[in-house]
Amino acid sequence: MSSKNVRITLQYEGSRYDGWQKQGNTDNTIQGRLEEMLSKLFEQTIEVNGSGRTDAGVHAVGQVASFHVNTVLGPGKIMDMMNRYLPKDIAVTDAEIVDARFHARLNARAKTYVYRVSTGFVRPVFERREVLYLPESLDVEAMRKAAEALVGEHDFTSFCGNRHMKKSCVRTITGITIDEVTTSLGGAEYEELRFSFTGNGFLQNMVRILVGTLLEVGEGKRKPSEMEGILAAKDRESAGTMAPAHGLTLWSVEY
Amino acid sequence: MSSKNVRITLQYEGSRYDGWQKQGNTDNTIQGRLEEMLSKLFEQTIEVNGSGRTDAGVHAVGQVASFHVNTVLGPGKIMDMMNRYLPKDIAVTDAEIVDARFHARLNARAKTYVYRVSTGFVRPVFERREVLYLPESLDVEAMRKAAEALVGEHDFTSFCGNRHMKKSCVRTITGITIDEVTTSLGGAEYEELRFSFTGNGFLQNMVRILVGTLLEVGEGKRKPSEMEGILAAKDRESAGTMAPAHGLTLWSVEY
Repeated sequence: MSSKNVRITLQYEGSRYDGWQKQGNTDNTIQGRLEEMLSKLFEQTIEVNGSGRTDAGVHAVGQVASFHVNTVLGPGKIMDMMNRYLPKDIAVTDAEIVDARFHARLNARAKTYVYRVSTGFVRPVFERREVLYLPESLDVEAMRKAAEALVGEHDFTSFCGNRHMKKSCVRTITGITIDEVTTSLGGAEYEELRFSFTGNGFLQNMVRILVGTLLEVGEGKRKPSEMEGILAAKDRESAGTMAPAHGLTLWSVEY
Repeated sequence: MSSKNVRITLQYEGSRYDGWQKQGNTDNTIQGRLEEMLSKLFEQTIEVNGSGRTDAGVHAVGQVASFHVNTVLGPGKIMDMMNRYLPKDIAVTDAEIVDARFHARLNARAKTYVYRVSTGFVRPVFERREVLYLPESLDVEAMRKAAEALVGEHDFTSFCGNRHMKKSCVRTITGITIDEVTTSLGGAEYEELRFSFTGNGFLQNMVRILVGTLLEVGEGKRKPSEMEGILAAKDRESAGTMAPAHGLTLWSVEY
């Protein structure tokens, strides 16, 4: 048997999990479930490295992870077996054998997160676990203007949920888009705002605090011109509230 | 205050309910929840008539129901209040005041049900409650041929789940379509078969038994030519197994 480095792409509905990162014995995390299942399956201790953590309740459609395993099986068979034993709210959508040096977190060049807000008259029933329902008239242009000020390399201390963060909070956001999407189902129309953030890395809770702050701009509680001051303050208190976890999805990871 | 006849359109995810129809005291049905909530809200006994029953676990995106209520409120306000007090897996998407003689069940001219089957390599995570996952290669042309034999006016006793049905089992199916739909999410492709049935009325479990039988044709276990004999037998034993509830959605009701 040879040691293989397996890179997998994962989807999960995060609703009932305590996030990505393993937490020890009383574990209800995505990483914990994967490691437990793989270790049993292959009868060896397997450690799974994700591209990054997702908070409790956050979803993923394109999370990437990797693990080393001694096996004669190919990637298709490994993916098959994993999907057979994983709970129905986690699925492996792709698997490949990669260079032994590949590491899902260390090699990640960029990530995209999407935050969905349903703003219409009717509450979405079937997507309620993945979309924040906020039936308000939001000023999209003001939010776009505010978002522009956040793009680029900045110290995002004001948007970091970890107040004891000792490492650098400098990150680069390469793009923020806010798309207005209208869908219909059973004759009902649904209006949705889709916030998309791409960057080289995100701090703890960062996307949710960015969204919460942008929504306050959309509601007219803050002005787009305040963004520069919020960044300069390097103080969590200066930014807005954190948007709920369930509206957020890790969309893709680039290598 | 005047007595109003209110016609509402409803969406619900049926997963945690015992179907549409009220069942007395230990009630966990859609109708029961609506009547309980409306009776409290308007401080009067309110009876809700649906266009028809849906089985336990079956969903709706266009269920229609009506109820009489003494109120000064208009339809928009009634809908608003209902949505405020309904659980998040039930939503009113439309409300209007209609003629006092309108009855959601008696006046229904046609109904459309949709049954969704995901057939691809990857199990859908986010739609798993609304789609049957059956990762098999199905013969769609054979299923379409079999479906043709079911269209028209027939005695559907063989497709009725209630073996003690004493009334006529003659119904007219005006159309069955089987569409192949491909969607993608996070780089993963999903293949889906969408069975759509339109008719003037459906017997208990009828759509699920039709789908179960068509899937057996798709799997090569039955031939399309067997459909005539199954109808002629007027015997539940002659048809196929009943497909699971969670793949089925009441799509729309015509008046």
